[in-house]
Amino acid sequence: MSVVQFNFPTVVKYGPGAVGLLPATLREHGVERPLIVTDKGIVGLPPVTGPAQLMREAGLAVEVFGGVWGNPTVSQAVAGGAAYRAHGADSIVAIGGGAALDVAKCVAVLAHHTGELLEYEAFLAKPLPIDGQVPPIFTVPTTAGTGSEVGRSAVVSDDHTHQKKIIFSPKLLAKRVFLDPELTLSLPAKVTAATGMDALTHCVESYLHTMFHPMCDGIALEGLRLVARSLPTAVAFAKRVEAGDRSVLSDAAHVSARGEMLCAAMMGAVAFQKDLGVVHSCAHALSTVADLHHGLANGIMIVPGMRFNKPVSEQKMATMALTVGASDATADGFIAWLDRFRIEVGIPRSLRDVGVSSTQVAELVKNALADACHTFNPRQPVTAHDFEALFGEALV
Amino acid sequence: MSVVQFNFPTVVKYGPGAVGLLPATLREHGVERPLIVTDKGIVGLPPVTGPAQLMREAGLAVEVFGGVWGNPTVSQAVAGGAAYRAHGADSIVAIGGGAALDVAKCVAVLAHHTGELLEYEAFLAKPLPIDGQVPPIFTVPTTAGTGSEVGRSAVVSDDHTHQKKIIFSPKLLAKRVFLDPELTLSLPAKVTAATGMDALTHCVESYLHTMFHPMCDGIALEGLRLVARSLPTAVAFAKRVEAGDRSVLSDAAHVSARGEMLCAAMMGAVAFQKDLGVVHSCAHALSTVADLHHGLANGIMIVPGMRFNKPVSEQKMATMALTVGASDATADGFIAWLDRFRIEVGIPRSLRDVGVSSTQVAELVKNALADACHTFNPRQPVTAHDFEALFGEALV
Repeated sequence: MSVVQFNFPTVVKYGPGAVGLLPATLREHGVERPLIVTDKGIVGLPPVTGPAQLMREAGLAVEVFGGVWGNPTVSQAVAGGAAYRAHGADSIVAIGGGAALDVAKCVAVLAHHTGELLEYEAFLAKPLPIDGQVPPIFTVPTTAGTGSEVGRSAVVSDDHTHQKKIIFSPKLLAKRVFLDPELTLSLPAKVTAATGMDALTHCVESYLHTMFHPMCDGIALEGLRLVARSLPTAVAFAKRVEAGDRSVLSDAAHVSARGEMLCAAMMGAVAFQKDLGVVHSCAHALSTVADLHHGLANGIMIVPGMRFNKPVSEQKMATMALTVGASDATADGFIAWLDRFRIEVGIPRSLRDVGVSSTQVAELVKNALADACHTFNPRQPVTAHDFEALFGEALV
Repeated sequence: MSVVQFNFPTVVKYGPGAVGLLPATLREHGVERPLIVTDKGIVGLPPVTGPAQLMREAGLAVEVFGGVWGNPTVSQAVAGGAAYRAHGADSIVAIGGGAALDVAKCVAVLAHHTGELLEYEAFLAKPLPIDGQVPPIFTVPTTAGTGSEVGRSAVVSDDHTHQKKIIFSPKLLAKRVFLDPELTLSLPAKVTAATGMDALTHCVESYLHTMFHPMCDGIALEGLRLVARSLPTAVAFAKRVEAGDRSVLSDAAHVSARGEMLCAAMMGAVAFQKDLGVVHSCAHALSTVADLHHGLANGIMIVPGMRFNKPVSEQKMATMALTVGASDATADGFIAWLDRFRIEVGIPRSLRDVGVSSTQVAELVKNALADACHTFNPRQPVTAHDFEALFGEALV
């Protein structure tokens, strides 16, 4: 007997202006003292000041913790936990990219649990249980990539070893998710592209996972279709914003492309309840060893990763080629499409272009092997030799 | 501001043997006196006797109400409500096709609400509220079509007028859904085909609905792909069972096709939270006026319905053509594929083949117009003249 469980528990509010529903939603959940957890890069900007003001106008006692930056770390989470207790908070509103959302989940754990954060790490032999009170979390992504807004885990780095650790609990699921494209209209082109390639990689790797889960498969394919359709548009609009053209901030085609990207990112994360694969193990290693942006790392590693998986995933890659509208609806056609697509949105082809050197390969291979994602990869096993070849291919 | 809400709340247990988890699941929900609501055609057969025995062995006090047949009616639900109270039941296990699942939901309403069932009808100007206790419902579909197992509404006919009425409440959502392909291995070929075309029509009409809901769109397209791949196989195996070949009851390809069809049916119903369209209004009228099986009616009406919608849905139909692997990936190619597909699985092309005559058209048009589904159809409006043409086309 092999019984699989399907469910998609999170309620998502989607649309331009969705964030306006935040105060009423907090009231419905009976909370009054939210702590906003956000990235220091946006703490004074409209994606944070707007919702904060709305909540204050609704009579909520809002405090802001803006101590997240770069790849999220344990020390950021600890500082957020202190801010939570200092405010006497009763809930968390996470606003930002994947880092802010992940730190927010860690703050939620630390709010009422007294152990050290990494004592709760999911892959420890005997992790401390997350069995105490966890405050309600409301998520507001300001990038379209990670999908952390619908996830039940947080990735956080040890400040000393830089190793990525996973904190996991169903209690970390957001009570409500707000996907508001208006919050993402000013994202720079590079961030748009890198986070968008993260969303794409989630869709691709979860679809290739061999678990039978047709709901996730359909969601992954449709998410992939949305990225194929909307990421180039979103990047093109981002470049116009960067060039000073403020008119595109209210362009319906821009709002639509940003909205589709937010959906694709959310869908990629819903789909990867199936799990991910070898590309993510490479990307996690690149963040640990070379502090590379996660989405950028995925965008570079996805083509070598797909070439590696092709022998066992020909049919599924052909279906993805059809889905994205590739002229050649075969696995090779999909890989060729991916390679052109990433260049089109501005992702470099080589790790050399982002400062990684071949002297780092041994350390990268060690970290990639230690990462769990590749154990779910469709082609098995993934050996040290395979990782060497994958990083080597990306260093050409 | 246009904010859309997405969520997929139901937990589904999928796989051969999934129904074996029923007793433990009931215990987890703290219930002890389930009433099985089922179809009289299967009350003495393994899909009912098996789970009933498992529950009794687990110490649960099980009673069986087998008073459902044909299109579900108010009087069946009233009899089920009486059975519920006579047993002193605390929960409902719905086993069967769409009729049994829909009657089970009505029994759940009548368990603790004292009005007449149709006083709760969703489209009344002032329906009675379903605000009292509703016992937990556990659903076990034995056909792959309706998807009622994941729905929050029941369709039930007035015994006198034969009009279809909708009972709706989020409280009618199943606590757990058991998709067990082993329960569907003995379905006759005709029932397999007709219910399968119902699932297909749910996927197609919900995908064509113009609401922006990419999760539903992805689920609908993947459900459509599963029907295209597995319904002909399931029908072929059903014919071998009917010819006396018992060996195929344990054939892995048979179990797999049945499993994929169960998933497709569930996915079609998840997707149609978007709503349906003109094909369903025709099918509802055909059930009311000519007592036609709902899936069979959809299977006949889908081709005229798609020809009607083609002018406004060319792109989406082309995507569906790609999804099912049609040789011509256009809207016309999709419609031609649909026409061949239904014939391949044994659905007749004309309403004349199932006993409908042109003298019934006026009554059909009246009922179709009164049905709500066509108000969600992508091509608007759908007039009396349009319905005349649609039924006329299907009567050729």
